[in-house]
Amino acid sequence: MDDRLQQHADIIVDHSTRVEPDDNVVVNAPIEAEDLAIAVMETLGETGANATLNLGSSRASRAYQLAKDDDEWETPEHVLAMLEETDVNISIRADSNTFESSDVPPETAQARQKEMRPIMDEVMGKRWCATQYPAPGNAQDAEMSTEAYADFVFDAVNKDWDEQEAFQANMVEILDPADEVRIVSGDSTDLTMSVDGNPTKNDKGEHNLPGGEVFTAPVPDSVEGEVLFDMPVMVQSREITNVYLQFEDGEVVDHGADKNEEVLSSVLETDEGAKRLGELGIGMNRDIDRFTYNMLFDEKMGDTVHMAIGRAYDDTVGEGNEVNESAVHQDMIVDMSEDSFIEVDGEVVQRNGTFTFEDGFEEEEA
Amino acid sequence: MDDRLQQHADIIVDHSTRVEPDDNVVVNAPIEAEDLAIAVMETLGETGANATLNLGSSRASRAYQLAKDDDEWETPEHVLAMLEETDVNISIRADSNTFESSDVPPETAQARQKEMRPIMDEVMGKRWCATQYPAPGNAQDAEMSTEAYADFVFDAVNKDWDEQEAFQANMVEILDPADEVRIVSGDSTDLTMSVDGNPTKNDKGEHNLPGGEVFTAPVPDSVEGEVLFDMPVMVQSREITNVYLQFEDGEVVDHGADKNEEVLSSVLETDEGAKRLGELGIGMNRDIDRFTYNMLFDEKMGDTVHMAIGRAYDDTVGEGNEVNESAVHQDMIVDMSEDSFIEVDGEVVQRNGTFTFEDGFEEEEA
Repeated sequence: MDDRLQQHADIIVDHSTRVEPDDNVVVNAPIEAEDLAIAVMETLGETGANATLNLGSSRASRAYQLAKDDDEWETPEHVLAMLEETDVNISIRADSNTFESSDVPPETAQARQKEMRPIMDEVMGKRWCATQYPAPGNAQDAEMSTEAYADFVFDAVNKDWDEQEAFQANMVEILDPADEVRIVSGDSTDLTMSVDGNPTKNDKGEHNLPGGEVFTAPVPDSVEGEVLFDMPVMVQSREITNVYLQFEDGEVVDHGADKNEEVLSSVLETDEGAKRLGELGIGMNRDIDRFTYNMLFDEKMGDTVHMAIGRAYDDTVGEGNEVNESAVHQDMIVDMSEDSFIEVDGEVVQRNGTFTFEDGFEEEEA
Repeated sequence: MDDRLQQHADIIVDHSTRVEPDDNVVVNAPIEAEDLAIAVMETLGETGANATLNLGSSRASRAYQLAKDDDEWETPEHVLAMLEETDVNISIRADSNTFESSDVPPETAQARQKEMRPIMDEVMGKRWCATQYPAPGNAQDAEMSTEAYADFVFDAVNKDWDEQEAFQANMVEILDPADEVRIVSGDSTDLTMSVDGNPTKNDKGEHNLPGGEVFTAPVPDSVEGEVLFDMPVMVQSREITNVYLQFEDGEVVDHGADKNEEVLSSVLETDEGAKRLGELGIGMNRDIDRFTYNMLFDEKMGDTVHMAIGRAYDDTVGEGNEVNESAVHQDMIVDMSEDSFIEVDGEVVQRNGTFTFEDGFEEEEA
């Protein structure tokens, strides 16, 4: 076995989800990730956990969704019953074709997603980790060979997470006590929001592996202005490019996209919360040095900011503040590497992708 | 898609498990059976069931078992919780290598099997079906090309099960009201047992697909004599050849095997019930015309009788009669095609593989 797979498995089990003997564990992974699933199951066996591996097939999932009537979706109570007795959920992603569900109608995907909400809630109320196996389809999205992509994935994942946490603490110290955040990029993005009273979390590779961001929740009705997400967004196997959103009193009042705008519209229509922001995140993982068109990695890049429409994470919302509720949590990315800055309570804390506490930060725009 | 796969899926969902809208369904299958799993999930989607597909990896299962200490096995309560809310279990078998778990120690496999007993009980208390996908490893066991083996599997599975049921009813009529059964083959097998009060079931492709046997339970302490199972038995990826058992008062008092005798010994030691018979079955599927070293098929061959040590099926035990309990249910086969007969209450009902109600039956040995 590739030593890096074993290291990846160790980090998932020991660091990300802190599995204990007798924990009930569910490992979900697509067929493509069998090699990592083997390493994870072996590690779980050594730990003395009660683990079950459920491999999935994107082709079977597509066939099932296409066959089912949209009004027939129900929460699968038997799966929910399992998750209620589960302590740790490990979810591995991998694709041989990232467009496998591209012909499932958006309405069908939405109908399914709504009924899967209790499943998502149950998983996210426990210890959980979502990670990536370097499969050919994901390498293809990244425009890389599978071998080079594997190097990229393992570099981003198999790192010293304590050191990363210490680096990110610099930004947590700034954002956690802050009130107003302003994101500016070129002529197309100028957005302000309050994060007053909402805690900033330090993502050290627990729920997401790779980790490498700090994130909080905007106060839902405080978001004002416009934003152009210049990195493509993949929704239900469809690529939406140049998503444009305009906010008033926290709600999307205008939206657009260059490609697949109707998919964006469908997401925004899912429920009330889908029209409001649930997350503001700032990427800080310097080992992720290129876009690979995979949210799990792209949003952690040091030169990016991301925001999610939809559901807010409970632990990023302070007592007494509103939690944005939604069946949706759709992250979208702004490239901050050029002609951009982040302002916190009137002070620039990042310019053109470089933080104030990093070498090379320029006080004023050149 | 191969039309025969769709037909197979239809029989599983409509005939074998009679899936209704809103049924909670679990489909278990190894990676190798993805194509059939896709067809089954599509059919379940059309039916309006709430289905979940859990693909398995024999390599991951091996790694997990080898890593775990034998005294650390526990019933996975989260999996049990799912099965308690499940109406229908569909289990597809397929192997790329039928020896994948051949280096898992028998003690480990036994320890696991004991703790999985409540899982097995839960599955078998509901509607369930175990079937086969024609994978290369299974074709290899059958000493056939994968293509020819697929023809064999689909011929045995995709048939008119009502017609098969009517044919088998001839034997149910004989065995159901019977008291004593005697199985004789060559010089090595002469076994008698009572089936008094125990119902004979007509297997028309429901729990097993292919089906094609009639079966009942021996009265546990009535079994007397000796039997040589001349077909190889696969236990935990190990081939046991020429299993010999001698019974007194229903219990195995002597045993032997040409190969892997220690695995047989380990099975017999699992618990008290493992030393007694739990099933007598008579193969009647004439479309299965060769041994393929796969119990699901071999035991249905018209020229065979099989017996299982261990657990009896509840529905084959009459009121007031003892149900043999065990974590084990290990089928083993006697080839009845030559120099053999089955006697029921003193009358020969099959000679050299041919039943009294079939053409070619000879009243007396030539």
